[in-house]
Amino acid sequence: MSRLAYLGPAGTFSETAALRFRPSAELVPCKSEAAVAAAVSSGSADSAVLAIENSLEGSVTGTLDALIHESSLAISHELILPIEQCLIVRPGATAAEVRVIRSHPQALHQCRTFIERRFPAARQEAALSTAGAVAEILEIEGGAAIGSARAAELHNAEILERGIQDDVHNKTRFVVLSANDSEPTGQDKTSFAFTVAHDRPGTLVDVLHEFSDRGINLTKIESRPSREDLGIYIFLVDMEGHRSDALVAEALAAVEAQASFFHVFGSYPRFRDA
Amino acid sequence: MSRLAYLGPAGTFSETAALRFRPSAELVPCKSEAAVAAAVSSGSADSAVLAIENSLEGSVTGTLDALIHESSLAISHELILPIEQCLIVRPGATAAEVRVIRSHPQALHQCRTFIERRFPAARQEAALSTAGAVAEILEIEGGAAIGSARAAELHNAEILERGIQDDVHNKTRFVVLSANDSEPTGQDKTSFAFTVAHDRPGTLVDVLHEFSDRGINLTKIESRPSREDLGIYIFLVDMEGHRSDALVAEALAAVEAQASFFHVFGSYPRFRDA
Repeated sequence: MSRLAYLGPAGTFSETAALRFRPSAELVPCKSEAAVAAAVSSGSADSAVLAIENSLEGSVTGTLDALIHESSLAISHELILPIEQCLIVRPGATAAEVRVIRSHPQALHQCRTFIERRFPAARQEAALSTAGAVAEILEIEGGAAIGSARAAELHNAEILERGIQDDVHNKTRFVVLSANDSEPTGQDKTSFAFTVAHDRPGTLVDVLHEFSDRGINLTKIESRPSREDLGIYIFLVDMEGHRSDALVAEALAAVEAQASFFHVFGSYPRFRDA
Repeated sequence: MSRLAYLGPAGTFSETAALRFRPSAELVPCKSEAAVAAAVSSGSADSAVLAIENSLEGSVTGTLDALIHESSLAISHELILPIEQCLIVRPGATAAEVRVIRSHPQALHQCRTFIERRFPAARQEAALSTAGAVAEILEIEGGAAIGSARAAELHNAEILERGIQDDVHNKTRFVVLSANDSEPTGQDKTSFAFTVAHDRPGTLVDVLHEFSDRGINLTKIESRPSREDLGIYIFLVDMEGHRSDALVAEALAAVEAQASFFHVFGSYPRFRDA
């Protein structure tokens, strides 16, 4: 049985993604994105599932850092899940009793309109995770938590309402990290990162030309502060194609020749919903 | 006296930035980035200070959303502040007494190594803001908070240790939003956003060429999910120069002609530390 690390505790959306990816795996909850990545590089897990990007919140910094710094890991798969926040109470409690709403500040933020409209008088309280909030409110008279349906199930709590996030288009993209990436399937993506040495007009354009000149479509480009200073950026790119495709390989080699930092995270099948 | 809105409560790093920008202003704390922006567009504040980018955490989604959606506001200034997290206790308390460490989950995350090394047995608790954590631990036996020196000062609490964040290069870039942007100073930056309609190889390169062909340096480029779907991106760009410079104006007009969405956030003096 394969061991699959994820950002715990049980009941987070990461656990839902891990269960979706490999229902039969032995799940290994970890305390941080770095610990999740380290579980694979040290061999205490075979693979890991990490959130990399959310349609409302943007990129997940801890995951990008783990990819950039843990060079022994590759992206072997991606999966995209809708994020459905639920209002959760202890069994038998009703909406009229809710006095306190507890969750991770980001989840409270995602459900702000719902809370203001339906529970304007409720006190908002922070928790370290959505799953932790569900466990905690079981002990609180008038308490409600915001979290996943899976967290409610795990803690034998009751879902009062589903899909309470302000924006219905709330999706998270997860990546699976393994020792190796995937073989070509004909419908692949490749992710890589690079830093260009010179801060002069056109450097980034020169790099992007390596792809457009070869007809390769980039599906994402993002610059992130390099952690050294706000003015130095690492570019993170996702593109169509497998790194073993002749044109993709040529373009990557050309970028590497111009880059001061260059790292291919892997090639993997493009996600298609079942 | 001018009124300056910021993301409250008092004692956040945003308040420190607002005080640094205009020490004589009347400060108006608001509950969300959207509320900060709305304070200016409704006239209840003259300007607003919002964090836009942190060297560890990346972009601040709420600020980018406010810029994209509140088209009546312009960026008139930028400022960059080092972020120094402090360990804060009630007066007279010592490190040996600390049993609980409370802060916003992001601040706890930024100080993880410090906490694990110095307070491995302490329980970590979440708060809705670093400033709120400081107020709350005054009531808690054995409580410590992580927050700004300013929060400690406001709540008459005591700083046990300064600069406890894991990474010393922790800086946040703030922008000042006003009804109008700034006149040219000769050392300016311009920020804008655009979406290109077609998802074909080279579209982004065509846009970037408008700048590199005119010798204009881009200081930042970032793609963000458009909120409609994970596959549609809005590009956010910072560049050197003022939008009234002839070449910059030409390049922006050329991009606008190719874009399905286009919005100049403003031109403003490049930040230089005093």
